[in-house]
Amino acid sequence: MIRQLTIFGVGLIGGSLALALKKAGYCQQIVGCSRSADHLQRAVDLGVIDRYTLDPAEAVKGADMILLAVPMGAMQTVFESIVNHLEDDAVITDAGSAKGSVVVAAKAAFGEVPRFFVPGHPIAGREKSTVEAAIDDLYIDHKVILTPLEQTSKEALQKVQKMWEVAGAEIEMLDVSEHDAVLAATSHLPHILAFSFVNSLSESAVSEKVFHYIAGGFKDFSRIASSDPVMWRDICLENKQAVLTALNDFQQNLSDLSDLIIDEDGDALLEAFAHAKAVRDKYVNQ
Amino acid sequence: MIRQLTIFGVGLIGGSLALALKKAGYCQQIVGCSRSADHLQRAVDLGVIDRYTLDPAEAVKGADMILLAVPMGAMQTVFESIVNHLEDDAVITDAGSAKGSVVVAAKAAFGEVPRFFVPGHPIAGREKSTVEAAIDDLYIDHKVILTPLEQTSKEALQKVQKMWEVAGAEIEMLDVSEHDAVLAATSHLPHILAFSFVNSLSESAVSEKVFHYIAGGFKDFSRIASSDPVMWRDICLENKQAVLTALNDFQQNLSDLSDLIIDEDGDALLEAFAHAKAVRDKYVNQ
Repeated sequence: MIRQLTIFGVGLIGGSLALALKKAGYCQQIVGCSRSADHLQRAVDLGVIDRYTLDPAEAVKGADMILLAVPMGAMQTVFESIVNHLEDDAVITDAGSAKGSVVVAAKAAFGEVPRFFVPGHPIAGREKSTVEAAIDDLYIDHKVILTPLEQTSKEALQKVQKMWEVAGAEIEMLDVSEHDAVLAATSHLPHILAFSFVNSLSESAVSEKVFHYIAGGFKDFSRIASSDPVMWRDICLENKQAVLTALNDFQQNLSDLSDLIIDEDGDALLEAFAHAKAVRDKYVNQ
Repeated sequence: MIRQLTIFGVGLIGGSLALALKKAGYCQQIVGCSRSADHLQRAVDLGVIDRYTLDPAEAVKGADMILLAVPMGAMQTVFESIVNHLEDDAVITDAGSAKGSVVVAAKAAFGEVPRFFVPGHPIAGREKSTVEAAIDDLYIDHKVILTPLEQTSKEALQKVQKMWEVAGAEIEMLDVSEHDAVLAATSHLPHILAFSFVNSLSESAVSEKVFHYIAGGFKDFSRIASSDPVMWRDICLENKQAVLTALNDFQQNLSDLSDLIIDEDGDALLEAFAHAKAVRDKYVNQ
């Protein structure tokens, strides 16, 4: 049972957690904090949070659980704004798409990474990311990855784990660097490729004709190029090293494939394509 | 009205055309030809074709319309097998995904590209490409691109156009090279990227973890990596120059994007991602 959950940044992610915990009767009070009174009032009107404040110090007063669901570039500012105002039993977690940079932000604000901070990443989303899109079953059967550090307290970890489980999520544990490498490969890389693909088509010599002939494959493949540009800029910057590693791996693979086409090496091309198909068919139920 | 349509390679593409023409009562007789009596008998059993033969010369006897729907690597062999057996009023078209190489194949077999040959490409498909997947409405509201040459006879072009229109398709005309460039960019490139993406993940340092965390974005993005490897090897070889041009454009764009991440140029990254999103949102109804 949570006494008071304070959510920084009440959008789809924080709002859906709030609704799930309310539905389960697992939280006595939910407080929202951000820089927009309008957004927060909307969250109150929608029944997502109980009350709000624009003052971070006031927001964490009484809170035994704090969720940072703000853009990653804003994490450090929020940490700094609450560092001297936390309750003794406060536990902090976050929902950032990269974990290394959030750990660095926490360390910068607190001097060292606090024992009561549990870095986390719910793997869930919808087309829209505002509080109006929040639903109480967003996390059911979805993964939440937690990346505790060596110094993270077992109690804090268990409390965060329990909260997400009550919301319906399945908890997985990864190292911070492992998380960032896996997400760079499975999520950040394809987004970058989709953006780049659409841009390269729009700049091609036949670009006026290109978009007239887009077919089903194009639609699926480029869907994620319609994602929020600000969020993806932040992810590229916050997960820079892991993203560049995944990008390099891909560029090398593509360059090798390109050489096979140049050399008209049909056997090797067939082997590469068949391997990709086998891997994908194995892991994805079509 | 078609007297006799002879289809080389009776799979999804040829079979669906046959069913559509039968339904419309637009074709008196439909004859199938390939190297597999089993497949052809199955097409007869399914009511897709009226009869079949394994002999190309016999297959085109009486035919005023001939469709080559065989793998692109087999086009020239089929052309050569029928060159001396055509009726005076025979019109030939094909369904290959690249048009330049089919024109070359026709020229090699006939000495020059025949006036009665109309290169074509129906932009339609389903998950399965066998005759069992053939349906009579596959082409309704789908595009068929025809790429007549200067010497192509107007009568042959009109006859092929009318046939596809009866099947429900919308006809578009492109130059051969334009077709190959547009398809390389919108279809061949994303398939190659999807294959390469899956392979680069499977070879990454975190590959054992990677496929455990695949999310919705990955599934959409990699769907086309489950396509037929043989068909895509052939397309890469048959449309080599246009594919390499599209690949080069993409590699350059991706390399520039990678530099922006290395330089942490957030403004330029945001501009690139926002441009891609704007382009995609403009052309694709989500």
